Amino acid sequence: MKRSPTQEQRRQQIIDAFIVHVVEKGFHRASMAEMAKTAGLSVGQVYRYFSNKEDIIRAVVEQKTEEYLAIMEDFLEKKDWLARIFEQKHSQEFQIERVLNMEIKAEANRSPVLAEIQSDADRRLTEHAIKLVRQRYGLQDEEDILARVQFLVALTNGLFHRSNDTDQPFSQASHRLFQHMLNELFPDQVVSTQP
Amino acid sequence: MKRSPTQEQRRQQIIDAFIVHVVEKGFHRASMAEMAKTAGLSVGQVYRYFSNKEDIIRAVVEQKTEEYLAIMEDFLEKKDWLARIFEQKHSQEFQIERVLNMEIKAEANRSPVLAEIQSDADRRLTEHAIKLVRQRYGLQDEEDILARVQFLVALTNGLFHRSNDTDQPFSQASHRLFQHMLNELFPDQVVSTQP
Repeated sequence: MKRSPTQEQRRQQIIDAFIVHVVEKGFHRASMAEMAKTAGLSVGQVYRYFSNKEDIIRAVVEQKTEEYLAIMEDFLEKKDWLARIFEQKHSQEFQIERVLNMEIKAEANRSPVLAEIQSDADRRLTEHAIKLVRQRYGLQDEEDILARVQFLVALTNGLFHRSNDTDQPFSQASHRLFQHMLNELFPDQVVSTQP
Repeated sequence: MKRSPTQEQRRQQIIDAFIVHVVEKGFHRASMAEMAKTAGLSVGQVYRYFSNKEDIIRAVVEQKTEEYLAIMEDFLEKKDWLARIFEQKHSQEFQIERVLNMEIKAEANRSPVLAEIQSDADRRLTEHAIKLVRQRYGLQDEEDILARVQFLVALTNGLFHRSNDTDQPFSQASHRLFQHMLNELFPDQVVSTQP
């Protein structure tokens, strides 16, 4: 269905209101009625766009996935990686994204629909990362590239959701260590890790 | 206050019931009344032990922290680390712990009380890990050891909460890569061959 600009804008207003409520109260306490109020719409209008909260999450995850795909080339550049990716962490936008991501993941533990939405997004991101890593670092073995991408994904998620010291800057030792580890993860020339 | 065995047992029943409800429904939908019912107690009895859900979480986090402290020496052994720590992942207990941990972390984004409980636990775990790493791997620089421990914590949390492929076993390439990366993270002590 092709939407007029006004419909697009309304749809986005609902998505934005949803994010505000989920971040403030958590997934379960964010109600469709309150979201509608924040978006300046009636509940009936909201239901014309989304039949439930899972539907809105699908739209949120789709938008985030497009954003992540667009910045992935920069993300896979290992130079000053820790500073580039994580020292923007004080921004409000980063905190909102962090909380929203955690809420969706927590709820995906109970909802097969959400688990599949998340899984589809992860698959798209992983496939794109594999393609870029193959091009950039000249690695060949598909299984090895996937392992390296998954390692970086785990590390990124762990840093993104670290619960302590989020207000503390990374130490010089951390910057050195990450540079070393990322050079091992994505070597400039292929080094076999086989014994 | 010294508790009789029965009081200890009741307290543990409440904690166990809380975990069941939080994992099944999420933190917000787990009510004190339902928890009491599952634990076979009246609501009044529950309130004699815990005045609210945050209090129960404090007890849960304390118990988990003691468990983690007890297994940390094994956790910091890098040999076959991925297999030893993460290939037990199909067990129901592991899944419960995963969901519970995510719920607490998600709620800690909104609750300063929970954030502090989590932060205290992380501090205790980090301090113990630093001590063990210093002993085992012969590293000296405190800032460097902390950076290495934090790297391992981020990686562990990311793997623990990875949303996709939790049902897929790790590939041979992943096992090789993790072995290589952990050897970089915690190098074996250099034994001087000089007389």
